Amino acid sequence: AAADAEAGEAKSAVCAACHGENGIAQIQGYPNLAGQNEQYLVSALKAYKNKQRSGGQALTMQGQATALSADDIANLAAFYASLPAGGE
Amino acid sequence: AAADAEAGEAKSAVCAACHGENGIAQIQGYPNLAGQNEQYLVSALKAYKNKQRSGGQALTMQGQATALSADDIANLAAFYASLPAGGE
Repeated sequence: AAADAEAGEAKSAVCAACHGENGIAQIQGYPNLAGQNEQYLVSALKAYKNKQRSGGQALTMQGQATALSADDIANLAAFYASLPAGGE
Repeated sequence: AAADAEAGEAKSAVCAACHGENGIAQIQGYPNLAGQNEQYLVSALKAYKNKQRSGGQALTMQGQATALSADDIANLAAFYASLPAGGE
């Protein structure tokens, strides 16, 4: 199924705690996601899910990504990529 | 030494090939870096340097990060964080 940014927005509630409602991270050490490249977001989430990223906050993200389906990952990536970079 | 965005800019010539002169990735699967959180950029570069990220493009980035000193990493992070998000 094509990525669904709206379904991604619904799924993003838990992400917003660190990455911000508008995709601008609340906490310095976490990445802004707003306007990021959709394909990069998919590959980053898959890397966390496949435990190909460790160190730093990676463990937190491994936990988050483990619970995501391939559709969730596609939808979240579409949602965050659709947000205006810099969060205007 | 405090992070030096100008030294980071000088160091970023090789990065621009994939991440763009203005920090907006030329290639879909690569991340935009413009306006990203400085601390996150430092931790991501260190993760590549320490080979804590594998899979996907990580191997390319491992090669790049291996050649960077701690100062280079701090300066590059300061430079890209200073660029306007979305590359306006």
